[in-house]
Amino acid sequence: MLFPTALVFAGLVTYALAGPHARLKHPKNRTKQPTEFIEILSSFSSSDESKFNPVSVAPKTNIFISLSNDEAASVISFLHKQTELNLTAAADAGPWDNAIEVVDLVQPNKTDALHYLDHNGPIPARYALARIAFGATEEPYVQDFIVGPLPISNASTYESLDWATTSGSAKIRNYNADERLINQWNLNVTATVADIVLDLLNGTATGSKDDDFDIWGIDPLWMEEIDGEQRVILWNTYWHYPSGKNAIFDAETLLPQGLFFKSDITGRDPSKWKVLGWLYGDIFYSTTEEFRKAWRSPHFVKYKLNLPGDWIGTDQTGEPFPGDDIAPPVAVQPNGQRFSVDEEQRYVEWMDFSFYITFTRDTGLRLFDIKYKGQRIIYELGLQEAVAHYAGNDPVQSGTAYMDTFYGFGPYAFELVPGYDCPTYSQFLNGTFHASEVSKTHRNNICLFESDPGYLMQRHSSSSYLALTKNIVFTLRSVSSIGNYDYIFDYVFALDGSIETIVRASGYIQSAYYAKNNHYGKSHG
Amino acid sequence: MLFPTALVFAGLVTYALAGPHARLKHPKNRTKQPTEFIEILSSFSSSDESKFNPVSVAPKTNIFISLSNDEAASVISFLHKQTELNLTAAADAGPWDNAIEVVDLVQPNKTDALHYLDHNGPIPARYALARIAFGATEEPYVQDFIVGPLPISNASTYESLDWATTSGSAKIRNYNADERLINQWNLNVTATVADIVLDLLNGTATGSKDDDFDIWGIDPLWMEEIDGEQRVILWNTYWHYPSGKNAIFDAETLLPQGLFFKSDITGRDPSKWKVLGWLYGDIFYSTTEEFRKAWRSPHFVKYKLNLPGDWIGTDQTGEPFPGDDIAPPVAVQPNGQRFSVDEEQRYVEWMDFSFYITFTRDTGLRLFDIKYKGQRIIYELGLQEAVAHYAGNDPVQSGTAYMDTFYGFGPYAFELVPGYDCPTYSQFLNGTFHASEVSKTHRNNICLFESDPGYLMQRHSSSSYLALTKNIVFTLRSVSSIGNYDYIFDYVFALDGSIETIVRASGYIQSAYYAKNNHYGKSHG
Repeated sequence: MLFPTALVFAGLVTYALAGPHARLKHPKNRTKQPTEFIEILSSFSSSDESKFNPVSVAPKTNIFISLSNDEAASVISFLHKQTELNLTAAADAGPWDNAIEVVDLVQPNKTDALHYLDHNGPIPARYALARIAFGATEEPYVQDFIVGPLPISNASTYESLDWATTSGSAKIRNYNADERLINQWNLNVTATVADIVLDLLNGTATGSKDDDFDIWGIDPLWMEEIDGEQRVILWNTYWHYPSGKNAIFDAETLLPQGLFFKSDITGRDPSKWKVLGWLYGDIFYSTTEEFRKAWRSPHFVKYKLNLPGDWIGTDQTGEPFPGDDIAPPVAVQPNGQRFSVDEEQRYVEWMDFSFYITFTRDTGLRLFDIKYKGQRIIYELGLQEAVAHYAGNDPVQSGTAYMDTFYGFGPYAFELVPGYDCPTYSQFLNGTFHASEVSKTHRNNICLFESDPGYLMQRHSSSSYLALTKNIVFTLRSVSSIGNYDYIFDYVFALDGSIETIVRASGYIQSAYYAKNNHYGKSHG
Repeated sequence: MLFPTALVFAGLVTYALAGPHARLKHPKNRTKQPTEFIEILSSFSSSDESKFNPVSVAPKTNIFISLSNDEAASVISFLHKQTELNLTAAADAGPWDNAIEVVDLVQPNKTDALHYLDHNGPIPARYALARIAFGATEEPYVQDFIVGPLPISNASTYESLDWATTSGSAKIRNYNADERLINQWNLNVTATVADIVLDLLNGTATGSKDDDFDIWGIDPLWMEEIDGEQRVILWNTYWHYPSGKNAIFDAETLLPQGLFFKSDITGRDPSKWKVLGWLYGDIFYSTTEEFRKAWRSPHFVKYKLNLPGDWIGTDQTGEPFPGDDIAPPVAVQPNGQRFSVDEEQRYVEWMDFSFYITFTRDTGLRLFDIKYKGQRIIYELGLQEAVAHYAGNDPVQSGTAYMDTFYGFGPYAFELVPGYDCPTYSQFLNGTFHASEVSKTHRNNICLFESDPGYLMQRHSSSSYLALTKNIVFTLRSVSSIGNYDYIFDYVFALDGSIETIVRASGYIQSAYYAKNNHYGKSHG
């Protein structure tokens, strides 16, 4: 603060709904009405007069753009001709086949890209990534290959994408190749304790559609040394399916039941798999017999059920709020769009910013060559991984660390809802990805919009003037609903040259059963 | 993430501009157009049909409400009758008089207040705070008194408000009583080095209106022990007045010139004040003669001037952005207000929240008795102090710690600009304060509004449904422009029961001169 004595306001002159920047002078004649308009330094043409074109033309070909469907198809066709890969069509492939999982772009070498972008060098050659699951072996694995140059010609080849990894090998052991066998194993093990499950959890899990429980557990699987050998370990628990009037809600991950079992699932022959024990009420039983014996004893403690109910839903409940029948405030774009997009080249310009967009199966939306006032400030901006690492007092929670690029942010980026996910006036773009030898396009799963976050970028009032600058921002948004999670990704550009990346989380968390957590739940004896 | 295999979307059904909460089911027939509308669970009456009333009636008298103008006037009149206070009317008072600075409410005892609010106890008696500056003494001080009960009657008394302080005394020494003498001192000292100021800073400071420089410094003043005595110390520097075509801008605090002098201003007789030295280019000269001698020497280093220019303004400069002639997005309230206000009692209801408002000279807006679902969750919510504590390599920056309740957040909370400071559809309230024996009302300096911050409170999409809930929030906003600073205060209420307090800062910072900060500036030899 500095000499406050000079500051005596008569009442401000105000002007509603004006431009992004305004400076008002105070009336010299203090007897004037404060609502009298004095001066707005910036004002608008009507939209008819503006020469602004919301369609831009990219200054350069988007060398970062996803593979076209034709490019993806040609890569798949090329790989099927490589007999040494022994590929089966993805649609027909079982766990003992080799099949293509993903086809995507390998981003160009940065030196080549910059030579093209900045010095009119030649356009970099395009190469594809191909991710192949090799199942026709006792030791299944997944391997990434680089295929190209594109378009496919006699000059095109493929090789392991080793140089793009930190480990030096693009090959990774797949311990999860036999998912159907694991599901059957879980049901078979449960069948040996069906009476206990019915008693403790008040329901059944047999694999039929009327089951009460789903059975699954840690992700990724554990490696554990047992008797000097590395074994593949799976911890499972029982999850109640949502039921009752809120059955539609995707709340299974809120309904763990507190009964766990540990399996050794090393190798591909389930007849050699073993149950290594049961856990209930914080007591570990190393055999099924031991668990059964305890359960039969009169002192066995049974814990409270974690059942579905109204609480699992997200619909409005109870008395509506006063005024809840009136539409809330909403943003509108009164005079048209102020950013421009080259839809084909996926190139965007907003105020002093410009950038290219691409979309990948693994990580969804990515931005390249972000320029501010004509100068590149970021070469590449995008998600690399999202790890949901849980913790808790049980083996399933403490063994859960989802790495969601495995499931992919691209395939789970679905259509956005105007007026909810994005303002109604947003421009929407589609996202395409190539998985299991199919190219899919999700309509309107990327939105672009300007908005006013509701506070100014700058204001100052003195005794002689008032200056205000709106803080209009530009956002790219995409939402990936990977199972129970909804990841909401924002890339927010501001007039001061700053860029903010925001990830908001919604959906359903994966919760722990509360037995023996004295602060959080109760037991029944 | 959980079993992603189940998630295959056909294309969402969407509905623009709908209610705060929606759940959409996916079409079972996947060949249907995605834009076909299926189900919205909540929808609106038109505003005509809603029975919502934006005018509320407070369930209780607002016992926290500011003094009325009549109450303040009666307190001032009562105090003037107390001859032992020896008061002069504030308008006539000089530094050697006793005068009332502030009159405000003393908030009721909380026990009494709760007895009234919760148990229909008697309404608590009202008491006023009176802050009096005592200047008719060699040791000027300011003291807070409690006056009451109100209305003033024969039963009303006044006493020092000692019990409301942590020190146990409501009396505080005022070292700043002789502001005019200090200003004259600064000019007199500068006159002794007028030639140096003209040479080093390229301008004059004489007290005339054509001066280039303003002279002021640390806040609050320092106490320093010199020769075993506590002395009152002032460090000053020279600030260039904004000039040129951007002279209107309040940028003096961006224009320090790098020349400093230290004074001993102990006591009220300027003839006993002393210059204790000069600082320039990180070199301290303990007398004016020493400084002058150095300046005359051929090796004296002169530093770069810090001059006003285009950069001090906040108007738009240069080429406008593409699209900048089009109005940006703006929020509207399509069907009317969804909160209700008792303007007289300053009582507000929004959804599950209710609260009372008051407004004080020292701290501006305050909230009391904040209830959620009928239960009090906060008794009092408001600012206590805002300290702008600077640091730097010079004595003025490192000696600056503005405590802005001294200047007051109430008097500097001015009218808000609809469409900039607050949405155009906001409800505005006035704020009144009582200072220097005058009651002033600033029109529309508090705004209340709902808004959509642009992201959802909840969303989830599965293979069978999509649920979305808007995150509509309710905000109380007030802006205090205390000299060079603009403090923007938000109290934000959310549907989940949370309350967020936000202070945003704008205006002009107080900057340091850059001499010898090698990373930030350059010197000229």
